[in-house]
Amino acid sequence: MSDSKSTTQVERGERRVEVCFSPKQFELYKDEFHTCVVIDVLRATSAICTGLANGVEKIIPVPTVEEARVLQKQGCIAAAERNGQIVEGFDLGNSPRSYITDELVGKTVALTTTNGTKAVAMAQDMPQLAIGSINNLDAISTWLMQQPGHVLLLCSGWKDKFNLEDTLCAGAIADRLIDIARFKSTEDSTIAAKHLFLGVRGNIFSFLKASSHRRRLRNLNLGEDIKYCLTPNTVNVVPVLQDGALVDSRKLAEARSVS
Amino acid sequence: MSDSKSTTQVERGERRVEVCFSPKQFELYKDEFHTCVVIDVLRATSAICTGLANGVEKIIPVPTVEEARVLQKQGCIAAAERNGQIVEGFDLGNSPRSYITDELVGKTVALTTTNGTKAVAMAQDMPQLAIGSINNLDAISTWLMQQPGHVLLLCSGWKDKFNLEDTLCAGAIADRLIDIARFKSTEDSTIAAKHLFLGVRGNIFSFLKASSHRRRLRNLNLGEDIKYCLTPNTVNVVPVLQDGALVDSRKLAEARSVS
Repeated sequence: MSDSKSTTQVERGERRVEVCFSPKQFELYKDEFHTCVVIDVLRATSAICTGLANGVEKIIPVPTVEEARVLQKQGCIAAAERNGQIVEGFDLGNSPRSYITDELVGKTVALTTTNGTKAVAMAQDMPQLAIGSINNLDAISTWLMQQPGHVLLLCSGWKDKFNLEDTLCAGAIADRLIDIARFKSTEDSTIAAKHLFLGVRGNIFSFLKASSHRRRLRNLNLGEDIKYCLTPNTVNVVPVLQDGALVDSRKLAEARSVS
Repeated sequence: MSDSKSTTQVERGERRVEVCFSPKQFELYKDEFHTCVVIDVLRATSAICTGLANGVEKIIPVPTVEEARVLQKQGCIAAAERNGQIVEGFDLGNSPRSYITDELVGKTVALTTTNGTKAVAMAQDMPQLAIGSINNLDAISTWLMQQPGHVLLLCSGWKDKFNLEDTLCAGAIADRLIDIARFKSTEDSTIAAKHLFLGVRGNIFSFLKASSHRRRLRNLNLGEDIKYCLTPNTVNVVPVLQDGALVDSRKLAEARSVS
C-alpha cells in the first residue's frame, strides 16, 4: 500500500490544506507543502499581525533571547517573551496592544517568544511562510486562496504540546479554504481541528476558559490581551517572511511591481 | 511562572488523566504518570484485547518484524502487520477476529504492528502499562479507577501522526474517569479528545468515514474489522504488561493472591 496520501486521495491539480498540531510533528508533514502558516494565537502571531498593521516596518523573528540581545546591541528595538512575561532587559514582549504605538511606526523590531518564533525558525526554509492569527483570519484566508500549492497550518502549541487556541484558529482557516475554495484535506488532524472549530465557533472565548494555556495567562492578568487575541479580524494584514524578516505582504507585492 | 501544571492546577491527592496524541509527543508527557494506557484502535490493541479475552495466554509485543521472526524461530506463534497487511512469512496479522480461534487458546503469541507495538515499546518502562480499545472500554475505565496515581492515555496514531479513532477512544476513557471518578485534567489535548468524543459518541462509525486511516483500511477490504474495532465492550479484559508480555490483569491478580 502506498504511503503517499497526496497521490492516492487528492486529484492532480487539487490543493490541500492540512493542520500540524505542534512543531514537534512538523518534520512529519512539511515535505508536501508550498506555503506554511505559523499560528501562535496567544500571543506571538497576534502581536506580529498587529504590529505590521499599525506601521511597524519589519519584525525579525529570532528563536533565542541571545539572538534578540545581539540585535538589540546593534540598535534594533528588541522584544523578548518567555513563559508569558517580558524578559529582563527588554522593553517589549508579545502583548499585541503594546505594538500599537507611534514609537514603532516605520521601525524594525527583533522578536523572540516561547513558542511562535521557534515555530517560524523551524519553518523558515519552506518555499513560502506567512503568519496567521484570529486577528487576521479573513486576510490570511483570502490571501491563501490566491497562492499556488498546498498549505500547511503549523500550530506553535505550548512547549511542543498541543494547544486549543492555535488548533481552533487553524480549524477556522482550514474550514474557509475547504468551504469557499474547495481545498482538500486528508489528515485526521485537519478533520479534528475543523470539527473542534465548527463546534465552538460562536463561543471560542468561553470554550477556551477550559484551556490550560489560557489559565496560565490568566494568572498573569492578561485578560485584555486574551480578549484581543480571540477577536476576529481586528487587522487586515498578512505578514510574510522575506529575507529573514516578516513584512506586510502588500509591501512585498508593491516592491515587486515597481522593480 | 512555574511550568509544573500538576502542582499549580491539581490539588494534592487528586488524580489526573491526560491524553497524548502521538508517540512522537510521549517524551513531553510521560514523567508525571503512573499508569500508561496504549491505544491503537485500528487494530493492534483491539486484537490484543480480543486475543486475551478468547483464551490466548500471553502476547509478547515486539517493535520490529525481525524480533518477531526470532521468536517465531524459537517456536512462538508470531503475528506481524505492516501498513495494514500481514507480513510475508507470518500466519497472523492484527485482525482481531483472527484471534478468536481454538488454536490460540493457552498459547503465547509474539506480535509486531505498524503503530501499536511501537507505542508499547516506547512506554514499557512506565510503572504500569495497560492496553485500551473501544472493545474493552468499560473494563479499562473501571480498572483505571481502581489503580493508584495519574493516568496517561497514549494514542498510537498513524506513523507518529494524530489519528481520530485513537483520540476518540482516549476521549471516551478520559470522559469516564473525569465524570465518574473525579479525575482532573490540565492538558488541552485531553479537553480536545473529550470534546471530540462527546460530539460524535452516538455516531463514531459515520464520523470516522472521514478518517484518513479508515479510508486506507477500506482499500484493504477491512470493513468488518473496522466495525468490530469500533464496537464498545465486546470483551471484558484489561491486558497489562508483566515481564515483557501482555496478560489478562485478573490472572495477574490471581497469581499475586496465590503467592
